[in-house]
Amino acid sequence: MGIIGRANEEVLRRIQAAEPVLVDVLPAGEAIPVLARGERVALHAGPPIEWGRMCGPLKGAVAGALVLEGWAGDLAEAERLAAGGGVVFHPNHHFGAVGPMTGITTRSMPVMAVENRAFGNRAFCTLNEGLGKVMRFGGNDPEVLARLRWLGEGLGPLLGRALRLRGGLPLRGLVARGLAMGDEMHQRNTACTGLFLREMAPWLARAAEGEGDGLAEALAFIGGNDQFFLNIAMAMGKAITDPANGVEGSTIVTAMSRNGTDFGVRVSGTGEAWFTAPVEMPRGLYFPGFSEADANPDMGDSAIVETVGLGGFAMAASPAVAGFVGAGRAADALGYTQEMYEIAAGRSQDWTLPPLDFQGVPQGIDVRKVVELGVAPVINTGIAHKKPGVGQVGAGVVRAPMGCFEKALEALAAGLGVG
Amino acid sequence: MGIIGRANEEVLRRIQAAEPVLVDVLPAGEAIPVLARGERVALHAGPPIEWGRMCGPLKGAVAGALVLEGWAGDLAEAERLAAGGGVVFHPNHHFGAVGPMTGITTRSMPVMAVENRAFGNRAFCTLNEGLGKVMRFGGNDPEVLARLRWLGEGLGPLLGRALRLRGGLPLRGLVARGLAMGDEMHQRNTACTGLFLREMAPWLARAAEGEGDGLAEALAFIGGNDQFFLNIAMAMGKAITDPANGVEGSTIVTAMSRNGTDFGVRVSGTGEAWFTAPVEMPRGLYFPGFSEADANPDMGDSAIVETVGLGGFAMAASPAVAGFVGAGRAADALGYTQEMYEIAAGRSQDWTLPPLDFQGVPQGIDVRKVVELGVAPVINTGIAHKKPGVGQVGAGVVRAPMGCFEKALEALAAGLGVG
Repeated sequence: MGIIGRANEEVLRRIQAAEPVLVDVLPAGEAIPVLARGERVALHAGPPIEWGRMCGPLKGAVAGALVLEGWAGDLAEAERLAAGGGVVFHPNHHFGAVGPMTGITTRSMPVMAVENRAFGNRAFCTLNEGLGKVMRFGGNDPEVLARLRWLGEGLGPLLGRALRLRGGLPLRGLVARGLAMGDEMHQRNTACTGLFLREMAPWLARAAEGEGDGLAEALAFIGGNDQFFLNIAMAMGKAITDPANGVEGSTIVTAMSRNGTDFGVRVSGTGEAWFTAPVEMPRGLYFPGFSEADANPDMGDSAIVETVGLGGFAMAASPAVAGFVGAGRAADALGYTQEMYEIAAGRSQDWTLPPLDFQGVPQGIDVRKVVELGVAPVINTGIAHKKPGVGQVGAGVVRAPMGCFEKALEALAAGLGVG
Repeated sequence: MGIIGRANEEVLRRIQAAEPVLVDVLPAGEAIPVLARGERVALHAGPPIEWGRMCGPLKGAVAGALVLEGWAGDLAEAERLAAGGGVVFHPNHHFGAVGPMTGITTRSMPVMAVENRAFGNRAFCTLNEGLGKVMRFGGNDPEVLARLRWLGEGLGPLLGRALRLRGGLPLRGLVARGLAMGDEMHQRNTACTGLFLREMAPWLARAAEGEGDGLAEALAFIGGNDQFFLNIAMAMGKAITDPANGVEGSTIVTAMSRNGTDFGVRVSGTGEAWFTAPVEMPRGLYFPGFSEADANPDMGDSAIVETVGLGGFAMAASPAVAGFVGAGRAADALGYTQEMYEIAAGRSQDWTLPPLDFQGVPQGIDVRKVVELGVAPVINTGIAHKKPGVGQVGAGVVRAPMGCFEKALEALAAGLGVG
């Protein structure tokens, strides 16, 4: 086995040795030091991007977040502030964080912390806002901001207390159970949300003693949102992949992420570098009244779940999600996973797929196989309206652009002196 | 279409028109008038049986229930009381009730009430006691009795208040969601238990205001028991099938039930009559330290879920349960459901199976097809130790004995003047 083989074995070992535990909820400004400084900082999904190249929903979310933080009085003032250079933008990924769709994270928003106890690192993701008009899809009206304030002042602190009382919630086994219940952890988190609530409801009750009203509201919010677990799965994915990055010679992908304009990939052997290409348009199903003409191209840090073998890679777990994202019938769902085995370096030992007789999910995307076979990673995704302030218009399947992997392979080859 | 065809269409129509709603939890003595009388009455699973012919776990459960009710000071006194004719025994099924395994129901036990809003009838089932030593598997020690008292004084009244506050919990859609998440609602209720908690947790919090301690305990008990929903599914099955019984000429089964000694079947066209044969031994997997030598034959009213198309009939939904009950691999799970289509009069319109591209579950067992094809209904079941007081030793698959269906067909033929 050569240097690449040994390096990839080490990366797979780190991915499979991870022990992700949801441990806390705290304000982003406390969790992520760059957000605590005096300057106005907004973290976003995907690789780095300046205001002028941002897509509509990302601009909408930024404007809403600036109003939420009190940095602008209204959305128009917020846009002027951002366009005039009054806000510093960074990717979530540069600070151990991830965010769905627009992925906007600013200091007052609560973030969930997942600790990888095998390696000691932490990763963060905001709380899922539910469906309808939400900031992750570019929503920014008063209803969106009021919900974010309640997440920061109500649900977030309560869930944080409950998690600390419990001593954290281990996620590896919970995700394994969710896969056996039809979740692929990207467009379907119905089972894991229920499993999460089964584990946490008594602790929420203990944490809420003396504040009964807030408890019922919190339980109703979590229980009423099939996607509540998505953001937990994302923080888990980031907590798993961060320690797997930076292994010299490895051709395994450690991040896939999109800002709505560019798709970016990181590979373990090239560390912090991003390899980017224009994002593609998802193919999927649109909510009534919308069509592909309304859709923004692919967006969000959520493809971190595919990076660890879930989402589109685990489609076999979820014939129900195959229908939701317009990916076909039960046999087609199996087909997506079988195709992803072709580009995976290994398979998970405990995240298994009952419909494939408990084979592990494909894990560790090998850039070499992607390029050689011409098989691009498949991602299950939500679809945002291309204008700011509208929200989600559908869900579908998208491929990571081949250009990212070709550039990464060139850089890897150059780094190994074979370029 | 002859008289049988028309009658079977009407029975299927009634099954498919049912609107089961979980509406209340109340003491069995209030819900079921026969239990409120002065005499000592115990309801049991299966067709009628006297004390002398009862199996070990059923005798064990009876003895425990007599101590629980204060009718005997200890288990030995309870056995003497029962053997001496001091207790009146009836099947649950004769009073709109069902119970898992031994199925013992006495006056102080809380029962959940499912109302079939399309027909106005109600059906009842005790609360699931969890795993380990429990009365439904013949357990009767102080731990078992203490838990039953807490169910009657703590969880039961709280859940009843929560359900009344909510205005009831409709079950048809919830079961459809559970099928898409790998539950077959007999040996696997993991998803439906989570969906149930997601719906009920905020109402439990509202119902518990001012009694915080009991709330956390209640949420932990429900959330910690993958089978909590089984008893709800059973009451639902009974609420669906009762109005479908008594249609002249119909050859569709309206109850399958076992007391651990006899298997009994009721058919719509023959109303209240039971057709019985000796119960069979489940084939399955045993918990460590136990084998078939320890096992009691098949037991419980729980086969009411197969009677409405769930459990073994819905095995295709649940490759995970196929492994648990020793029924083989994912393809075998599909095979059980496909075989049950052969003996079903129809299929459900909204309880669908994603792994079979959303075909409806087989529904309405036709006695004629069972006998003609020699295909016996398949039932997923727990396995009890044959001695009183031990508990569950495994889980498996069992077939309904062909003799019940042959006798039923003879009676139907005689009734139609073709015998």
